[in-house]
Amino acid sequence: MTINVTIFNEFLHERKIEAVREIYPDGIHMALAAALGQTDDINVQTATLQQPEHGLTEAVLAQTDVLLWWGHMAHDQVADEIVDRVQERVLKGMGLIVLHSGHFSKIFKRLMGTSCGIIWREAGEKERLWVVDPTHPIAQGIDRFIEIPQVEMYGEFFDIPEPDELIFISWFEGGEVFRSGATWRRGQGRVFYFRPGHETYPIYYQKDVLQVLRNAVYWAAFRGNTAVTGILNAPNMKEPLEEIK
Amino acid sequence: MTINVTIFNEFLHERKIEAVREIYPDGIHMALAAALGQTDDINVQTATLQQPEHGLTEAVLAQTDVLLWWGHMAHDQVADEIVDRVQERVLKGMGLIVLHSGHFSKIFKRLMGTSCGIIWREAGEKERLWVVDPTHPIAQGIDRFIEIPQVEMYGEFFDIPEPDELIFISWFEGGEVFRSGATWRRGQGRVFYFRPGHETYPIYYQKDVLQVLRNAVYWAAFRGNTAVTGILNAPNMKEPLEEIK
Amino acid sequence: MTINVTIFNEFLHERKIEAVREIYPDGIHMALAAALGQTDDINVQTATLQQPEHGLTEAVLAQTDVLLWWGHMAHDQVADEIVDRVQERVLKGMGLIVLHSGHFSKIFKRLMGTSCGIIWREAGEKERLWVVDPTHPIAQGIDRFIEIPQVEMYGEFFDIPEPDELIFISWFEGGEVFRSGATWRRGQGRVFYFRPGHETYPIYYQKDVLQVLRNAVYWAAFRGNTAVTGILNAPNMKEPLEEIK
Amino acid sequence: MTINVTIFNEFLHERKIEAVREIYPDGIHMALAAALGQTDDINVQTATLQQPEHGLTEAVLAQTDVLLWWGHMAHDQVADEIVDRVQERVLKGMGLIVLHSGHFSKIFKRLMGTSCGIIWREAGEKERLWVVDPTHPIAQGIDRFIEIPQVEMYGEFFDIPEPDELIFISWFEGGEVFRSGATWRRGQGRVFYFRPGHETYPIYYQKDVLQVLRNAVYWAAFRGNTAVTGILNAPNMKEPLEEIK
Repeated sequence: MTINVTIFNEFLHERKIEAVREIYPDGIHMALAAALGQTDDINVQTATLQQPEHGLTEAVLAQTDVLLWWGHMAHDQVADEIVDRVQERVLKGMGLIVLHSGHFSKIFKRLMGTSCGIIWREAGEKERLWVVDPTHPIAQGIDRFIEIPQVEMYGEFFDIPEPDELIFISWFEGGEVFRSGATWRRGQGRVFYFRPGHETYPIYYQKDVLQVLRNAVYWAAFRGNTAVTGILNAPNMKEPLEEIK
Repeated sequence: MTINVTIFNEFLHERKIEAVREIYPDGIHMALAAALGQTDDINVQTATLQQPEHGLTEAVLAQTDVLLWWGHMAHDQVADEIVDRVQERVLKGMGLIVLHSGHFSKIFKRLMGTSCGIIWREAGEKERLWVVDPTHPIAQGIDRFIEIPQVEMYGEFFDIPEPDELIFISWFEGGEVFRSGATWRRGQGRVFYFRPGHETYPIYYQKDVLQVLRNAVYWAAFRGNTAVTGILNAPNMKEPLEEIK
Repeated sequence: MTINVTIFNEFLHERKIEAVREIYPDGIHMALAAALGQTDDINVQTATLQQPEHGLTEAVLAQTDVLLWWGHMAHDQVADEIVDRVQERVLKGMGLIVLHSGHFSKIFKRLMGTSCGIIWREAGEKERLWVVDPTHPIAQGIDRFIEIPQVEMYGEFFDIPEPDELIFISWFEGGEVFRSGATWRRGQGRVFYFRPGHETYPIYYQKDVLQVLRNAVYWAAFRGNTAVTGILNAPNMKEPLEEIK
Repeated sequence: MTINVTIFNEFLHERKIEAVREIYPDGIHMALAAALGQTDDINVQTATLQQPEHGLTEAVLAQTDVLLWWGHMAHDQVADEIVDRVQERVLKGMGLIVLHSGHFSKIFKRLMGTSCGIIWREAGEKERLWVVDPTHPIAQGIDRFIEIPQVEMYGEFFDIPEPDELIFISWFEGGEVFRSGATWRRGQGRVFYFRPGHETYPIYYQKDVLQVLRNAVYWAAFRGNTAVTGILNAPNMKEPLEEIK
């Protein structure tokens, strides 16, 4: 079965900043699309902030199994009605993978219910993401830790709800830790947050980082119990009691 | 230390429907206020939809330790800016106890990120709430289960995020179950959902139901780690790395 | 990839009690083996208490991906060294599915760390297992609930550790509820407890019950992060610090 | 209400190794007893491996609200029947705080059901324990992190069951992380594991470390729902169904 992946990118840094363009000449979304689209069972398309409805029309979302979300400097420019639409689609079963600075995106804050605040520092320091849930499919094929030579630091307290599953914890050279890979169920949808990916470093070309994203796509694409989907509109259930009485 | 409790009630059923007024002549909020205000360490005030800012001004919220929320037929009439304000206050440490039909309130859906949908039936059937987390303070002093003779049924699938703690599971005469008492941390705040309480039954006069609410007030009033509160605005942290390097 | 399933049965009720033999003439293990072995990618073998080492030799366990456990009246006759062996194999990645009265088996109590006590009643009453985690693979293809016409009741408080995932909650005609389908990770292994299955009722011929077991086999067979497996013996790690300093 | 605390120490390093004796001349248990016993509502006694029944007689455990456990080189010398006794007492409501190398104690492994393995290194490096659950009572009064200048490192993968609550995550100078403060409910008892405390460093004189232990004593001493305690022996419940039918 083919998995339909849509990669959303606000696509601003790459066009405005020469240093970013050198790393991701066609945009982060195109780099990710190239990496994820290499297998026959994943079909990738992209969407950007600049497109009508940010490229996330009803039609696009209806046929998307997993949505990846990259945003950083323009979270506020994402229209609330598109956020409503994406949230509703997640609750009905679409997977969502939120990347790096997407922790502050409207859609992530909407699904979490919290500020999603962090502490941070740009100092090009080293990061290690340690596997703490070795039976999770998202950690499959990864070593005991992923090492990234130069990153922007994100530190605790990360103001998220308690994750359903905590898969990676990051260590930073400068003295911080971070819950870098975590999952939450929201309605019928599966949500994964994954920290790596600052726009000024070539992190989305690193093999084990891409392996995690590929694992996450397969995991998030899972279709749950469809009998439950049918009742999400709070129906009045008269029958069972009458049967019993 | 005195705990400041504010009880919000949309206060509509009690004024419009004779049968409800007979049970709660001064409103559900006043019945709850009378029950919770009996101890010296709890100080109760109330707020209703009809008041300016629904009675939930900045000043009121600033000095509220725990907010109880009752709403049913007028969730949409709660102003979004008040919902924003309550959410922000929860993230900074106010406790929130959401009652019965409050599962569909704007503030609960906002904090959960899901539809909070249920199935339901009004048939005056029996309910039992079974304790499944006996070490939780909210279950203290309760028997193995709470029995309520006549209730409106709420059934699964209840579209909530996985609870941090599941304390009560309900059994209904007609054949359903429900996660009736559950907690979630959101930021620095503690949230408790408690199912009992339909307006057409005298449930808020039942002793063990009130014991749970009293327990929940003490639990939700807990003030967390204030050092963490100070950093919820995502500060740039330059120092640690420089110290180390 | 073929999944190797071993079904353990203490195999006593079926040989001693005529009424049980009529339902499961060749034993519960053979009924389950027939049901699970129908697909090409599952390879089933069985083991019984009476065999040398209860049929669970090092060699058998080494090539078992998922072990199903049925026991009821003879939990004490299972040798401690076999329990040690099964536990060690689970921690290294074997899946374990514990059935019905297996809640009191040595291996389940060993992995849980609790008494695993319940309340119970034999009255041939009706049970409904409601899906409360619709995105879980184990609930896939099932309706909103499974109904079993006649069962032995198990009720709360079920003395288990907080489940990692709670998938099914049971409702019983007589007034109780039960956490009937729950998972826990133990080391590299995945554990699933599933309540249905009393020996005096033909429950293991019911289609949706068998669907859950089949789903659970696929879920529990998952091989985790093998890099982590290599370090379960608490090695002294000298290198990383020296690299950094 | 006074909380009765018993501190168990295997009491071997302090008697055999001069360097340890210099730090803890009367043993780690006496240093902890002095620190925890400073408030009127905590009553402390100690127990050591060398005493009859390791000082953990039925009578001592019966009147202990919270047991602290320190062991390192002699886990195997703890008698299995004492481990059985402590486990049973935890399931009936005694709190248990497991310290540092106690991760490999029989009682902790018994309650967890896993190997409790880690990676480790002795290099006198720096550790920081970051608060990741700011609403937890155990983190109250602590800064955003606790810094300990010289420690033995413990790193992931820590082979524990998924914690009910993850309160502290450690960062180590050498590149590792560790889930350093975590809780689990077992039966009616509350269990807390806290990593700091190697015998060759004066960690149990550090103010914020002691604050965490004091917080943990109050938290673990909580008495749960006693109605549930009464049914832990799996009683046959005949009445409810007959009432209903």
